[in-house]
Amino acid sequence: MATTKPARGMRDFLPSDVRKRDFVIGVIKEVYESYGFEPLETPAVENLETLMGKYGEEGNQLVFKILKRGEKLDLTKAASESDLSDLALRYDLTVPLARVVANNKNDLPKFFKRYQIQPVWRADRPARGRFREFYQCDVDAIGSGSMVVEGELLSAVSEILKRLGFEDFTIRLNHRQVLTDILDTAGVPTDLHTDALIAIDKMDKIGAEGVSAELAERGISGDAATILMEIFAKTQEILNQEKDINRTIVANLINIVSNETLSELGQILKFADKAPIIIDPSLARGLSYYTGAIMEITVPDLAGSLGGGGRYDGLIGMFGKEQIPACGFSLGLERILVVMEERGMFPPEITASRAADVIVTIWDEDSIVNSLKLARDLRKQGLRVTVYPEADKLGKQFKYADSTGIPFVCVLGDEEQKAAKVKLKNMTSGEEWTLKASEIVSKISK
Amino acid sequence: MATTKPARGMRDFLPSDVRKRDFVIGVIKEVYESYGFEPLETPAVENLETLMGKYGEEGNQLVFKILKRGEKLDLTKAASESDLSDLALRYDLTVPLARVVANNKNDLPKFFKRYQIQPVWRADRPARGRFREFYQCDVDAIGSGSMVVEGELLSAVSEILKRLGFEDFTIRLNHRQVLTDILDTAGVPTDLHTDALIAIDKMDKIGAEGVSAELAERGISGDAATILMEIFAKTQEILNQEKDINRTIVANLINIVSNETLSELGQILKFADKAPIIIDPSLARGLSYYTGAIMEITVPDLAGSLGGGGRYDGLIGMFGKEQIPACGFSLGLERILVVMEERGMFPPEITASRAADVIVTIWDEDSIVNSLKLARDLRKQGLRVTVYPEADKLGKQFKYADSTGIPFVCVLGDEEQKAAKVKLKNMTSGEEWTLKASEIVSKISK
Repeated sequence: MATTKPARGMRDFLPSDVRKRDFVIGVIKEVYESYGFEPLETPAVENLETLMGKYGEEGNQLVFKILKRGEKLDLTKAASESDLSDLALRYDLTVPLARVVANNKNDLPKFFKRYQIQPVWRADRPARGRFREFYQCDVDAIGSGSMVVEGELLSAVSEILKRLGFEDFTIRLNHRQVLTDILDTAGVPTDLHTDALIAIDKMDKIGAEGVSAELAERGISGDAATILMEIFAKTQEILNQEKDINRTIVANLINIVSNETLSELGQILKFADKAPIIIDPSLARGLSYYTGAIMEITVPDLAGSLGGGGRYDGLIGMFGKEQIPACGFSLGLERILVVMEERGMFPPEITASRAADVIVTIWDEDSIVNSLKLARDLRKQGLRVTVYPEADKLGKQFKYADSTGIPFVCVLGDEEQKAAKVKLKNMTSGEEWTLKASEIVSKISK
Repeated sequence: MATTKPARGMRDFLPSDVRKRDFVIGVIKEVYESYGFEPLETPAVENLETLMGKYGEEGNQLVFKILKRGEKLDLTKAASESDLSDLALRYDLTVPLARVVANNKNDLPKFFKRYQIQPVWRADRPARGRFREFYQCDVDAIGSGSMVVEGELLSAVSEILKRLGFEDFTIRLNHRQVLTDILDTAGVPTDLHTDALIAIDKMDKIGAEGVSAELAERGISGDAATILMEIFAKTQEILNQEKDINRTIVANLINIVSNETLSELGQILKFADKAPIIIDPSLARGLSYYTGAIMEITVPDLAGSLGGGGRYDGLIGMFGKEQIPACGFSLGLERILVVMEERGMFPPEITASRAADVIVTIWDEDSIVNSLKLARDLRKQGLRVTVYPEADKLGKQFKYADSTGIPFVCVLGDEEQKAAKVKLKNMTSGEEWTLKASEIVSKISK
């Protein structure tokens, strides 16, 4: 007998789960569309070469690879993984977008604003809140280097979180050039910048001491590490203050970071209006394709982020002849759901939703056709109607209605059928009425 | 430079494609929910053993297998494919449903009615209208052997097709027991029944002669094949008649097929009410898990079917301790879309949909904040608003609006800003107005 569990790190979503997911996705879509973003979908399966080399070394290893098929798979000649696989599962939504933009250059508008809400797969070690299949809700604007893009993206994701009921989120904003300037100031050689960023990216998880240790491991000199950690300690001090955080942080960076970069950060703050942004010069973001502003959204009761993004002006050029500026943000559906579940943030119409508004029972074999006809009539009037499929004892049919939480039951007994009426029962109040079929909708709507 | 094409047999869906797909999916969901079916989702990736042996030999070969990862993958010891793979991509939505039902027996209602609209993957040879990733829109009722289930399923899918604008579809209905009885009558030995069904399943594609040849190849005697082909020829004759097709076909089967089976077919006809059903004793359906009624929907201008389904009372028992009766139907989204596209069946609000209702232009660097504020105001009033991201020449901004088909443009020039007004232009009629921001919505809605 085969196992009945989903594969490791994967999940089945029962109806009550799907309703919550669809509710959140619905809000996200509505807001993205109100900002003029259009829907895009890409296949789950990409050519392996499309994905390789885009996510850094760790990313390469976490890509699910698909076995070659038929004659293409020659076990006798397979010396390495690359002989066995030619396809892979989507790892994020940004690289496929870059491919699509390069592939459809002439069919897409000069400024292409798209959203995409689809699952991605990573062969990560499963843990609490970390799955091997999870949804990303991406929004990206292609074709402009203007900070209007960053501003609008952050306005949109802020509005989504507010509409979902989040009031305590923070957008941490940084810029890859800020990090480069800080690393240069500290004397970290350019060829060690990537290593340094990988270490700095772990600040939240392993703290300042952990980062210092990892910097040393990765060959960054003690002197450079000391300067780095001083800059970040100073930042942390400012972040813990109450007032004018961004102004003070910028002042603190004036001798380290170029005016142009600081001006970009200032524009983003201005254009994103009331989004709750603080500049955090220690924010690094893992993915290697970022080139400009980077951002991440956090809430106090969740380790890790609700979403993140940034500018990646070089990625599309890896697929096309042309460098095209681009910037995007990705909301993590699973983490939003985890926090909403723990805080009880779903509206009652979602949590109380049931399979149907009313169930039509079956009196006996001979009246099945009448019950089915009643169900069809009620559906035409806009009700969601299920039919008990068998001529069971009425008690069992009521018990089923009760166990599924369906709030109303219709009975078509001999008497009711003779009188062309229906008996309707409210399962919550216990009230019963004998009505014409046409009177049922208004009774249920009350 | 990496390739920009999607992988073989896979497709990208640009915004106009997604809108059409979402429109059809929306209708399908609405009707399924009105019948009391609840949403279910399962992961794209299943344990390989969950899928193997469920789809017949051809199916096994078409399953996309995922390469083992890390230490689990030992190339030196890999003697066969099964040493290389432990996971696979979902091949249909029925087997995962059976797994979920067995896994959640205690949390699901006695009668579980679910719908599921998700992609599946098959390593098939791509051809016109045949893809390696495609969506299935499944609806299944678990827990009852009553023909009410078949009737309601066929009512639901008929209503979907009617709502989408199909008027000329036919539901072909058969029963695995009808086929078994016909094969027994013709003298085909039981152990050759599966072979015979595989041949008969190709009637539409290769015709009676082709089927005869394949029956011979598969070891079915000439005598048996002759009787079989006579029965099906007689059926075909009846199917070509105009009146009382089902009655005549049933009459023709009375000496071959048991009363119980014929009664089941009769009940389905009665319970599905006005669904356009004809009984076709030659309908075989490829999948091996069917046990009772089988059905398929066709339209005149499409080879193959728009969808199909049937009863599979034995499948859930392959995952759980208990045999649980079940019946389902799967609509093929891609084929529905192909026919709707060719016939021009999409409503204008879908085909004419654009990225936004209005675009807000940017007059100069200093007024960006005002333009963004106007966009936010208009969004609050329910409009979908995009902002041109740069302070380009106004002519270029209008050209962009024109090229994207966005129907209205807002301009916030120096004069308008002084007067706290907005210039609004209708891109179709050329009309222009100078208005307060609060007056824009009503002007656009006209």
